[in-house]
Amino acid sequence: MVDRSVGRTRAAVVGTGLIGGSLLLGLRAAGLDVAGWDPDPTTRAQAREQGATSPDRLDDAVADRDVVFLCGPLPTLPETLLRVAALTGDGCVLTDVGSTKAELAGFADGHGLAHRFVPGHPMAGTDRAGLTAAVPGLFETAAWVLCPTGPGLPAFRWLAGLLLAAFRSRVVPMSASGHDAVVALSSHVPHLLAGALAGAVHRAELGDAVLALAAGSFRDGTRVAGSPPQRTANMLLGNREQVLRQLDGVRAYLDELAGALRADDPAGLVGLYRGAATARTGLDGRTLRAAARDFPLRDTGDAELAYLLALGADGGHLSGCRVADGRVTYTAHLPTAVL
Amino acid sequence: MVDRSVGRTRAAVVGTGLIGGSLLLGLRAAGLDVAGWDPDPTTRAQAREQGATSPDRLDDAVADRDVVFLCGPLPTLPETLLRVAALTGDGCVLTDVGSTKAELAGFADGHGLAHRFVPGHPMAGTDRAGLTAAVPGLFETAAWVLCPTGPGLPAFRWLAGLLLAAFRSRVVPMSASGHDAVVALSSHVPHLLAGALAGAVHRAELGDAVLALAAGSFRDGTRVAGSPPQRTANMLLGNREQVLRQLDGVRAYLDELAGALRADDPAGLVGLYRGAATARTGLDGRTLRAAARDFPLRDTGDAELAYLLALGADGGHLSGCRVADGRVTYTAHLPTAVL
Repeated sequence: MVDRSVGRTRAAVVGTGLIGGSLLLGLRAAGLDVAGWDPDPTTRAQAREQGATSPDRLDDAVADRDVVFLCGPLPTLPETLLRVAALTGDGCVLTDVGSTKAELAGFADGHGLAHRFVPGHPMAGTDRAGLTAAVPGLFETAAWVLCPTGPGLPAFRWLAGLLLAAFRSRVVPMSASGHDAVVALSSHVPHLLAGALAGAVHRAELGDAVLALAAGSFRDGTRVAGSPPQRTANMLLGNREQVLRQLDGVRAYLDELAGALRADDPAGLVGLYRGAATARTGLDGRTLRAAARDFPLRDTGDAELAYLLALGADGGHLSGCRVADGRVTYTAHLPTAVL
Repeated sequence: MVDRSVGRTRAAVVGTGLIGGSLLLGLRAAGLDVAGWDPDPTTRAQAREQGATSPDRLDDAVADRDVVFLCGPLPTLPETLLRVAALTGDGCVLTDVGSTKAELAGFADGHGLAHRFVPGHPMAGTDRAGLTAAVPGLFETAAWVLCPTGPGLPAFRWLAGLLLAAFRSRVVPMSASGHDAVVALSSHVPHLLAGALAGAVHRAELGDAVLALAAGSFRDGTRVAGSPPQRTANMLLGNREQVLRQLDGVRAYLDELAGALRADDPAGLVGLYRGAATARTGLDGRTLRAAARDFPLRDTGDAELAYLLALGADGGHLSGCRVADGRVTYTAHLPTAVL
């Protein structure tokens, strides 16, 4: 964190598949000095063919960097975090892009890394995989969850500023457990429902006819059921408790819908669908208002942390984070209903 | 059924909203002599403004027609069927476009209309409603379910030929109850799942944050939850028993997925998702092979009926239906896995 101007920042990306590779290309396009490393020699060679720096040894890639992005598969991240922490100075910010956050955040905390590890999760991806599918613009204006903590506030501010400058991301500050609960509903449970619907058709006697008459609702509702099964299984297992907890809420609503249908109760059904339509309409109809807030840097940080976590929980995000004159100034965007 | 060449056929459409209006425009574009009628005077005036024939009295619209398409809201169809049957000759084929079939088919049978009422359901529509949203090309190459019965075979053959000639539809022959079971899975249960997911988010404490981080899986999986609640409720109530029955199968699969997740069983999850992926991949990867079959007209019709119902149940459709020299010749398309 010696040099805070984006253009001079030295970054490293460990694990250069789709996400890490896109970061490697995107950070370079933003003017950073960036090195990538991947355990696979072929991937390292591909990165070099694309003009990126990708040394053969991990320590050559991460030594003397201001920030290292950990981008390997979820189960490998704890070990990678320890390796990279040992190879970098205490001022080097570490972050990851894994799809769940609480487990790794707790692991980092337990290893005394909470002051420089900022759990992260960019909400971007494609149906493809690998460095050859990477694109530098993958994160432009995407939502990017970062998990601030008391000891990690300075690292959070710096990393948020970097992502905003490099990618114009919508930085969403959230607690690690809050993030995991939210993505359980916004991504993981939808995968369960899609799997159940497509799976039931796979088993149904009339399955072939169902495919022949598939309406848009079926096509949309089963799309992610066509994803690679192993990848989906890993994702769900990585957020097991939260997925099961949020599934209970969805099942409860489904039970009420089925109950109203069984009872031949049009008013009950309409009422339940009104609630559903409100949420769905909110997805495309969200209007946000900007508001600035600043905090003194020489403070406990409690008020700043509470502000940030409330912002993310309320569906808001940051578009600005500036540290100057002993204060941090955030530009926040909140749904108007909440403001 | 006096004149079987499409160009000279006299058709009527009763109820000229989105579907009926598109039929009115589409049949006219195909060269038929077609009249439309709607209980709403404004809609009739709109139809005339578009150059269509739309008399003020129902009997003027349907008298002396070869075929009448009943296109009003589902609950109005039994009464409309009886009115139109009384206003038309015994050789006039009657059909409908309602989203469920068993109830109306039974009603028609009970009123001695099985020989000339062919239950139908074109799988086409848009998110809009009303004659102003109607487009003549709505049914081009769409799947169009028709329900043949023993006494209704001649009417089925003639109507299938008309739809194939006018719209190049994929005519899917199905029993009325088979149709209702299939659309329960291919359309109605997906609406329940979408409602449950969006409804649970509406209730969730972190609902705003879920919308802010909505992944493609959530966006796709909740799309139809934004439909008008009353319309969705009517659709589900119109196919109540089948929807509840098919929902059981989906819930059973969901239970197995949740059980494998709870048991931390990657192999179990992967196996279940393999089945789901097979069905979903089949949606876009269906390859069909054409095969012709013919039957003597002067027969019990049992073999022909069995052939037609098996074709639809297996996910196939008709692209040709020709009656000549005392025989009917069908051109069928069946998924290669079934052939």
